[in-house]
Amino acid sequence: MDEDQRDRGPSTLGKTRMDSFSDGVFAIAITLLVLDLATRAPGSPLQQFQHGWSSYVAYFGSFLTIGAAWIAHNGLTDRLERVDPILLRLNVLFLMTVAFLPFPTRMVAAALDQPAGFQRVASVVYGLTLLVIRLAFALVAAYARREHLRDEGVEDADVQDARTKFRIVVVVYAAAILLSLLAPLAAIVAYLLIAVFLFVPLRASREFF
Amino acid sequence: MDEDQRDRGPSTLGKTRMDSFSDGVFAIAITLLVLDLATRAPGSPLQQFQHGWSSYVAYFGSFLTIGAAWIAHNGLTDRLERVDPILLRLNVLFLMTVAFLPFPTRMVAAALDQPAGFQRVASVVYGLTLLVIRLAFALVAAYARREHLRDEGVEDADVQDARTKFRIVVVVYAAAILLSLLAPLAAIVAYLLIAVFLFVPLRASREFF
Amino acid sequence: MDEDQRDRGPSTLGKTRMDSFSDGVFAIAITLLVLDLATRAPGSPLQQFQHGWSSYVAYFGSFLTIGAAWIAHNGLTDRLERVDPILLRLNVLFLMTVAFLPFPTRMVAAALDQPAGFQRVASVVYGLTLLVIRLAFALVAAYARREHLRDEGVEDADVQDARTKFRIVVVVYAAAILLSLLAPLAAIVAYLLIAVFLFVPLRASREFF
Amino acid sequence: MDEDQRDRGPSTLGKTRMDSFSDGVFAIAITLLVLDLATRAPGSPLQQFQHGWSSYVAYFGSFLTIGAAWIAHNGLTDRLERVDPILLRLNVLFLMTVAFLPFPTRMVAAALDQPAGFQRVASVVYGLTLLVIRLAFALVAAYARREHLRDEGVEDADVQDARTKFRIVVVVYAAAILLSLLAPLAAIVAYLLIAVFLFVPLRASREFF
Repeated sequence: MDEDQRDRGPSTLGKTRMDSFSDGVFAIAITLLVLDLATRAPGSPLQQFQHGWSSYVAYFGSFLTIGAAWIAHNGLTDRLERVDPILLRLNVLFLMTVAFLPFPTRMVAAALDQPAGFQRVASVVYGLTLLVIRLAFALVAAYARREHLRDEGVEDADVQDARTKFRIVVVVYAAAILLSLLAPLAAIVAYLLIAVFLFVPLRASREFF
Repeated sequence: MDEDQRDRGPSTLGKTRMDSFSDGVFAIAITLLVLDLATRAPGSPLQQFQHGWSSYVAYFGSFLTIGAAWIAHNGLTDRLERVDPILLRLNVLFLMTVAFLPFPTRMVAAALDQPAGFQRVASVVYGLTLLVIRLAFALVAAYARREHLRDEGVEDADVQDARTKFRIVVVVYAAAILLSLLAPLAAIVAYLLIAVFLFVPLRASREFF
Repeated sequence: MDEDQRDRGPSTLGKTRMDSFSDGVFAIAITLLVLDLATRAPGSPLQQFQHGWSSYVAYFGSFLTIGAAWIAHNGLTDRLERVDPILLRLNVLFLMTVAFLPFPTRMVAAALDQPAGFQRVASVVYGLTLLVIRLAFALVAAYARREHLRDEGVEDADVQDARTKFRIVVVVYAAAILLSLLAPLAAIVAYLLIAVFLFVPLRASREFF
Repeated sequence: MDEDQRDRGPSTLGKTRMDSFSDGVFAIAITLLVLDLATRAPGSPLQQFQHGWSSYVAYFGSFLTIGAAWIAHNGLTDRLERVDPILLRLNVLFLMTVAFLPFPTRMVAAALDQPAGFQRVASVVYGLTLLVIRLAFALVAAYARREHLRDEGVEDADVQDARTKFRIVVVVYAAAILLSLLAPLAAIVAYLLIAVFLFVPLRASREFF
């Protein structure tokens, strides 16, 4: 019984704090995005607002991407029964990729006004970050599955959703990153469309309409 | 029984994380407002402080607006019995409108010292953001009601409060946005008064005095 | 019984989110203080570090002040049995004073290198903010007591601590604000000493040594 | 019984909020690191990205360090049965060291492009901060042990991990700080290696491979 409590106690508490820490990082990263809208140095407010369309596109795409990542993470941890030291660390590495996103978002926002060379760098770095977020999440999910940390008998709608989308999205991201080298603006539009696709719930929205 | 737990388990956990993520975004957006007070570039501290009245007005109005939105959201989720994939996503979109508010707040703060053209842009963008925050919240609340996700038998004082205020506020916001085109400063004062009106608890304050 | 659950259910949930939102605001305000250390524009890193002593003093004082406010708030809500609409709003106003602190902290940090006129403004604004934080907290605590929202039979060590310190601190703050007009640097040292005094647990530390 | 509840009630609640506040500070400090990547003033995005390797190294090292500190803190509070006023305050002081880290991180990132004098200052300040984070954590852990606040019969894998690493790390940090005076860049590489060492779970990773 003591042995039993030893197994259950730490894992439940550890999971609570893993959720709470993860929610914090997601919430901060998603809210920090507005700072790059707010701190564009030169120009009057009017000009900033008019010329700022590129930063609004980047803001919207990154907001949806982090929102979709939070929902997928939510679906993953919902049925998590235990955490172990390695899962905690893989989760921190996944959060690092999410927390990093405001940086390439700003690169894209800044590059849209500039020559094609800059756009190419920004678009590739942004796309690679989006791809690595997905891969890092898949790694966390795969580890949880391998170690039987989740209650596998039950499948959350959002988890199925995330799984269905994963393979499609990895291929499309890779294609969009290659597209960046030829037509960076088109690639940025592609990233935005992928963000919308990731965010929309496939099955649930079918019932909705 | 297993079936039953399947229905209750995920929704309760999902709700916990929806609350925790939402509280994070509200808390960060409301606290980030101070950065725009703190990072005004030119001038000595004394001059910054004296000339900064416009940013204090904007700070105060936006703080109350986010505070009132948090209280209304609190009232909504208090009696929420289940969450579903669509509610999670509508909630993320609502949070996007809240997290965006620091940007037009800064526009208003910066524009009050400047020509009427700038003030008009800032005042319209600020008013539209405030209106969209309300509409996005109403969408989340309407979806929760339509899908019977809430325990409708019980009505929180803050939910009644929010419902009573909603129609008034939408009309007044629309009027204030039109007013922005003629007299942007008057519109900004109107936004501040609406923020105070949204924040003050109608019924509860009647008992208080 | 249904009636009973109606009274208990919402208040417990509302309290959870009040705690969670408050912890978020405290945590963000206390962590944002470092940004004003990190974003001082001119000079090399070496010079920034050597000349930055004034910002370290301000950082340390404000960190302890927010830490002490969090501990006092913790003591207050620990035994809170219900929340009501007015308490939620008074709490938001209290959090506004806490979230505002990074702004005068930066004013003090910037003013210490500058003429006495600037120092006087910064020192008065900083002192008034510290005083208003205390008064706003006392208002929340007084309302909770008046409405019997707390379990009054039990007294937390930190609550007693806060109550003992309150009257002393209000008087000392008022004196230090007056001192600001004559000797602003001395007043800033006084604020730092009050922050240390607020942070140290009087009774508990007696047992400790 | 009343007496008993008096002992258990406050401590459990206090612990919940200590966890929640701590998670907030960890999550914000770790996510704020990206702002120093994003706000490097001069140069085009392309140049910023190419020349920014030093800030990526500093970002990566500090992210892992805060992540490892969060995991160690998690292990400590997992088995915490009570909190007392002094533990709360020691914890706030520990969080101050964590929340301070973005400042020396930025110093290191800025110094890597500059003369050896700057690098020396930045490397020493960064190393001292890392060392003080470890010492402050050890102080919190030692106090919890001395006051029997933890359930000592049970030992979490991450706690054992942290204890094993502590002595090694303090010595290596001290050596790296001395090395800073001679070869600051080598010391920064050493800090990065220590961060990786702190982050990797020794025992758990043995089972993993």
